Amino acid sequence: MKPLKEMNKQELTAFREKLSAQYEEKKALGMNLNIARGKPGDDQLRLSLSMITDFPGLLHLTSEDGTDIRNYGVLDGIPEAKKLMADMMGVRPEQVIIFGNSSLNVMYDTIARAYMFGIMGSTPWCKLDKVKFLCPVPGYDRHFGLTAQFGIEMINIPLKEDGPDMDMVEEYVNNDPAVKGIWCVPLYSNPSGTVYSDEVVRRFAALKPAAEDFRILWDNAYAIHHLYDEEITIPNILEECEKAGRPDMVYEFCSTSKVTFPGSGIAAMACSEANVADALSRITWQTIGHDKINQMRHVQFFGNIDGMKAHMKKHAAVIRPKFEAFYEVFDRDLEDLQIAEWTKPKGGYFISFNSMPGCAKEIVAKCKEAGLILTGAGATYPYGKDPQDSNIRIAPTYSSLEDVKKAAELFAICVQLVTADHMLRDMGE
Amino acid sequence: MKPLKEMNKQELTAFREKLSAQYEEKKALGMNLNIARGKPGDDQLRLSLSMITDFPGLLHLTSEDGTDIRNYGVLDGIPEAKKLMADMMGVRPEQVIIFGNSSLNVMYDTIARAYMFGIMGSTPWCKLDKVKFLCPVPGYDRHFGLTAQFGIEMINIPLKEDGPDMDMVEEYVNNDPAVKGIWCVPLYSNPSGTVYSDEVVRRFAALKPAAEDFRILWDNAYAIHHLYDEEITIPNILEECEKAGRPDMVYEFCSTSKVTFPGSGIAAMACSEANVADALSRITWQTIGHDKINQMRHVQFFGNIDGMKAHMKKHAAVIRPKFEAFYEVFDRDLEDLQIAEWTKPKGGYFISFNSMPGCAKEIVAKCKEAGLILTGAGATYPYGKDPQDSNIRIAPTYSSLEDVKKAAELFAICVQLVTADHMLRDMGE
Repeated sequence: MKPLKEMNKQELTAFREKLSAQYEEKKALGMNLNIARGKPGDDQLRLSLSMITDFPGLLHLTSEDGTDIRNYGVLDGIPEAKKLMADMMGVRPEQVIIFGNSSLNVMYDTIARAYMFGIMGSTPWCKLDKVKFLCPVPGYDRHFGLTAQFGIEMINIPLKEDGPDMDMVEEYVNNDPAVKGIWCVPLYSNPSGTVYSDEVVRRFAALKPAAEDFRILWDNAYAIHHLYDEEITIPNILEECEKAGRPDMVYEFCSTSKVTFPGSGIAAMACSEANVADALSRITWQTIGHDKINQMRHVQFFGNIDGMKAHMKKHAAVIRPKFEAFYEVFDRDLEDLQIAEWTKPKGGYFISFNSMPGCAKEIVAKCKEAGLILTGAGATYPYGKDPQDSNIRIAPTYSSLEDVKKAAELFAICVQLVTADHMLRDMGE
Repeated sequence: MKPLKEMNKQELTAFREKLSAQYEEKKALGMNLNIARGKPGDDQLRLSLSMITDFPGLLHLTSEDGTDIRNYGVLDGIPEAKKLMADMMGVRPEQVIIFGNSSLNVMYDTIARAYMFGIMGSTPWCKLDKVKFLCPVPGYDRHFGLTAQFGIEMINIPLKEDGPDMDMVEEYVNNDPAVKGIWCVPLYSNPSGTVYSDEVVRRFAALKPAAEDFRILWDNAYAIHHLYDEEITIPNILEECEKAGRPDMVYEFCSTSKVTFPGSGIAAMACSEANVADALSRITWQTIGHDKINQMRHVQFFGNIDGMKAHMKKHAAVIRPKFEAFYEVFDRDLEDLQIAEWTKPKGGYFISFNSMPGCAKEIVAKCKEAGLILTGAGATYPYGKDPQDSNIRIAPTYSSLEDVKKAAELFAICVQLVTADHMLRDMGE
């Protein structure tokens, strides 16, 4: 196959007809596939099943500091859970607060606290005329969605190969006191799989914010979610910020949602001890404590961080072929046509796919028509507006490998068909 | 013994000397007792142990509507959990949202949503100059503590034998648009054990608030927490508000914290379907869903509301003697002296004790000196200020029966000693 843009109108018309026939064939199968959300598949959920079935008979009822985990109390988590989650993020246990079942909830509540009460004595954001957040794009739709709830203005920052465009970030953060935050998924970014370079992380730590209450929201969602044997790491942002003299500039988040069970895992925040104290001074009015029994389950199930990492290798073995199924189809069907680009992440939960500008919405609609649900086009941008209408997020994990292969085939057909349509329209057909 | 106020100075001095000797004797024992918080005791926690140990091998992994409870999703709770908690409150499942492990957290978040976003399109409370809450007193310290966080002005409302002073409530609610809420623990009030009468509940439902976003915060914490065979009930406030034409006027809260495990139970809110929709429209940005596995554990452990009620009888059998241990000592040592009043609730977790005015703080301090920790005097009032310095909350459940008896003895001694001291001071000693 030659690149689509090198085809003349006749060739392109023939190409489209062939694809159109392939599409109708697939559509006739009445498929019902979903690659919209980063959900673990059944084969992954089975990996943790013994945590809620076999071993609870031996569940420790007392934490290592003597706390009865069945009763009220312990706002910041039992010590062994703090240790485990600290190791997951590579930070110190004193820097960790254990929360409930959802890091999204922790992030939302963190923004809510800043909005209602301010951070460390600064003006509550609800009393300010304007609050702005920087949003590396493409990014995680739920970050943008929750930010919008608080009336915070979101500014797109291009995500480059090694992380956000730091010239832009520095320009905004160091000069505009209304800029209070930036959303980062520094390792295996959602959706691109981008890994921030050491230099980018250090430039983050070297920021000199105009706002005293500016915070880097470091969503380390995929800290140990490697797809291959290579365990890619990034510098410890808390340590880097300490070294740079601004230890309080970052909130880091993580959870076991994609380690054990989404909705029944444990979530954590890591930050400076001053930030921990500030947060707990508010949280103490919100709850008496989170689920310590579930914290203990996790601690016992893994033993320690090595056990958790070994567990992640089992996840990788299950989901890596699902990612590769997409690559195989894309390399085979799309590479030569030069009509799209896609990432091949080394970890995380997503493939980021860029069609030719103006095609993404149509591709998603075309897939839906044939029974394949994708994340809505535009969702990876603030306000759901992809200026290029080009980015599509692919979540390969949830479906069976067999279904993933079908989804990849159908998706590739839709991309070709929609692109050919566009090009023909451009030719004035 | 004759009433203390009938004693002359000589008699009172002798009385005080006797008590002082008894006190020193107790103090010398070096006790370490705590009746400060409404925590279940070990004997109660054992009642639910099989929920986290024996039976999980049979845990259902799919809810009755086909949801995989191990994965993401279901914002409002699995249907069987909604049914169970609806039955606990006597409401319809459509009126219920299941949350995480803490009803306090649900209440806090409910106030936070009103503060940040407003209720059903009304002005967010953070944009108003003044928001006021009515607080029946004595009441639950954590209600007052969280309310204070939002800068909400708290107004004391006397709690009478059959509930809050409804003349005052009507006066405030129906005339002052700044009054946005009232905290109620309608059944076995914390700390008095008061049960709101049918008439009081109906007068609540008949309120005609000046504020469109006024809400009754109906903390039904002890809905099925009876101490005796008699299962006292109150009218369904949601139904009463519906009948009165204001279905949206109430948020009801409950949890299984004192049914299964504090910190590892499930919490719920009940309200009109319009309120449910309004709340979920915000919560959908905060989380993808709460812990469905724990919801299923609860459903399976109890089977249904009858199973839950049978379970509560086991709790009652364990804690009733602890309450009665206090009554026995109080009746024996304090009754004749006419220096205090105390409640004998039919359910809930507390005894409310009123000393002579000006004595409560001193009694609590005296107890502490001898190794008995009580809830701080004043805690049962907004801002921690008991205008009479008279109310003390007693939480008999946590300690063993043996320790509870010791605590009751010591407490009664402190009450007598401090009161005699006061009276002697008044006599100009």
